[in-house]
Amino acid sequence: MKSTHTHDGLVQMEFNLERDVSILARTPRVLLTLLAGLPEELSHRDYGPGTWSPHEIVGHLIHGERTDWVPRARLILRHGASVAFEPFDRQGHVALCREKSLAELLELFDSLRRANLGELRSFSLTPQDLARGGTHPALGSVTLAQLLCTWVVHDLNHVAQICKALAFQHKNEVGPWEAYLSVLAPPNPR
Amino acid sequence: MKSTHTHDGLVQMEFNLERDVSILARTPRVLLTLLAGLPEELSHRDYGPGTWSPHEIVGHLIHGERTDWVPRARLILRHGASVAFEPFDRQGHVALCREKSLAELLELFDSLRRANLGELRSFSLTPQDLARGGTHPALGSVTLAQLLCTWVVHDLNHVAQICKALAFQHKNEVGPWEAYLSVLAPPNPR
Repeated sequence: MKSTHTHDGLVQMEFNLERDVSILARTPRVLLTLLAGLPEELSHRDYGPGTWSPHEIVGHLIHGERTDWVPRARLILRHGASVAFEPFDRQGHVALCREKSLAELLELFDSLRRANLGELRSFSLTPQDLARGGTHPALGSVTLAQLLCTWVVHDLNHVAQICKALAFQHKNEVGPWEAYLSVLAPPNPR
Repeated sequence: MKSTHTHDGLVQMEFNLERDVSILARTPRVLLTLLAGLPEELSHRDYGPGTWSPHEIVGHLIHGERTDWVPRARLILRHGASVAFEPFDRQGHVALCREKSLAELLELFDSLRRANLGELRSFSLTPQDLARGGTHPALGSVTLAQLLCTWVVHDLNHVAQICKALAFQHKNEVGPWEAYLSVLAPPNPR
């Protein structure tokens, strides 16, 4: 694996298939452990106007499995930068969330993620493949390695967001300790 | 359970022993699922000056099990507000982290958390107990219910922080997608 030291002392790493697939493979079990069996007063509540509940976040992750990561990887491998990705629909999970319980969403996410990681492995990606370029409809030029790293960070982003949504349901009950708990800071609009 | 609607439409809930113990009981498995077996290049790296690595965060959670939540609950039940809590040592995990591997810390956290939840259940807390006051050395008057809610939110805070630390190791590899990933925002000093 290639790693580089940056000016601020952090070590930054390029996409490493084995290591990063191992993180992607953990996420369904992380979500199950955090969320399975929680009462709806925790799983179905957002943390402020324009934010998502844990139930909606799992729906969003499912929509990503279906339309974002592996479909875009496939597009890069077939067409390179010549065909732009379909724009991702940030409301694409709404109907799904209306129809399915949290338990159903967690199971669906697990099975889609397994299938997608199977397909990713079947690509047998080389360093040359990872360097291939694609075209994001809003961000422009990207590489396959960046797409796959973003998949990993996107998972972690949403696990952290689920923690924030769960924490916010207790926001008014921690009293003066709120000052010490950064997870209770106002939601980031992203 | 008592719940109240606030001006911003969020429903806020008071400490509910069964529900909140269920969240506290999940955390060791959440951490195991997220972290067990990760290479040190992910588990032992912080996300900027003054921040902690996942390994250090687990050490901090262990120090909390030993010196913070249940010891303070015990103090409130025995002495009410008349005896202030010992100040929590935010560096109390440093020696522990030097001595123990991540796998050892995860196992230790699991066993301490089980023991503490057993002791919490053995208190058979009544609503009157939960309303009892204590004295925080810096924050002043608090209640037992606030202490226990803070324990829950503190767990979620640190699971989110672990996600941030893991995400940051990919920060320079996501290319233009960084703009969409709030978990990669600069660390909060808290």
